[in-house]
Amino acid sequence: MPREITVALVQMAPALANPEENLRKMGEFIERIGSEQPTDLIVFPELSYTGTELGLRATDLAERIPGHATNYLAKRAADFNTHVVFGLVIKEKIESILYNGVVCLGPEGDVVASYRKVHLLGEERQVYRGGFRFINVDADWGRFGMLIGSDLVFPEAARSLTLEGAELVVLSANWETNRQEQWRAHIISRAVENAIFVAAANRVGEEPTMQFGGDSTMVGPMGELYTLL
Amino acid sequence: MPREITVALVQMAPALANPEENLRKMGEFIERIGSEQPTDLIVFPELSYTGTELGLRATDLAERIPGHATNYLAKRAADFNTHVVFGLVIKEKIESILYNGVVCLGPEGDVVASYRKVHLLGEERQVYRGGFRFINVDADWGRFGMLIGSDLVFPEAARSLTLEGAELVVLSANWETNRQEQWRAHIISRAVENAIFVAAANRVGEEPTMQFGGDSTMVGPMGELYTLL
Repeated sequence: MPREITVALVQMAPALANPEENLRKMGEFIERIGSEQPTDLIVFPELSYTGTELGLRATDLAERIPGHATNYLAKRAADFNTHVVFGLVIKEKIESILYNGVVCLGPEGDVVASYRKVHLLGEERQVYRGGFRFINVDADWGRFGMLIGSDLVFPEAARSLTLEGAELVVLSANWETNRQEQWRAHIISRAVENAIFVAAANRVGEEPTMQFGGDSTMVGPMGELYTLL
Repeated sequence: MPREITVALVQMAPALANPEENLRKMGEFIERIGSEQPTDLIVFPELSYTGTELGLRATDLAERIPGHATNYLAKRAADFNTHVVFGLVIKEKIESILYNGVVCLGPEGDVVASYRKVHLLGEERQVYRGGFRFINVDADWGRFGMLIGSDLVFPEAARSLTLEGAELVVLSANWETNRQEQWRAHIISRAVENAIFVAAANRVGEEPTMQFGGDSTMVGPMGELYTLL
């Protein structure tokens, strides 16, 4: 069944440890994108709600799902009838256990799914616990999976989502500039090896020790480039 | 243990269905490379002994292992104390069953291993049977695996070799020009996702319906480019 969908990638620079500012910005992006044209899916970068180098602040900035951030953005998603994927620090009942996660909000203003990053990078392991499940979302227009940052380096992640029926994988990333050639290579390879679409939103800007490379991109199942920001 | 090895990639245009000509050329390449400097491993492209678009001629050009081609080149490998990987059509006892294969010859002039391509491309299936095992070779200087052409598109292939201890994967390919961006992406991705070296020899030249893209390359475990022909 041929279908056409509209996906928006938001290449933003979240303010470090300033969630209210980031929430406002994300809300404005959703409004601006949704006002320009009907959009099926809007993808924000990894940890777009908090920024990256949080250190001990991660505990204070972590939120439950549903919670403040999901409530705020779910309303915007419903206003513009779109799915929204954004990044945040997730906590559960035990407040000291944190995850680097993304949430998918639905066009009905509901929390559709959340995913906890499986492949944590070295230093992240001091802060976050690794997830253990890959999550697909069923939209009206098809099934898509969610990955975060360094999940991209492990082909098993996108493969698992594809084997469970994903036709599109969205990636929310905080990818650093010094590995930018690998970024492009992995995205093309994941798309082609699974014959799927990959929509990858990477942040820009700087933090105390990190520089982020942008190059958010959408690639098709034959490696064809739809956009490169 | 830090080690330094010398790998040569031969980016040649095999003559179609002219194995004697190709054997002579390969012998000359080994001699020229080995005379210039001590070399640990020389990698030839896929089907370097026969060319690619063989059709029904594949049956006549297929060889057993050991056989004429391996005997000839094994002597050259021994002369220059190097491993040699080259491509040919392999047959076994039942003459009608053919494989798209590579053979690894050792510095002692022995046949060290052979590998039969697992991931055949669409049309190849009319001629070749698929292999079912990934093969690593133990050299004095380390363990390396062998892959062929479209095996590169399936991350499980290089992953399997890595999980069995490969530090280097050599790829013999007949990769077409119209998928050249994917070629580079897959090679970088395989190297980085497995933290291994990848040494890929692709042929050049044309055949009745195919054009080959060269770009033979060696990439390291951080995606670093050692050479691109």
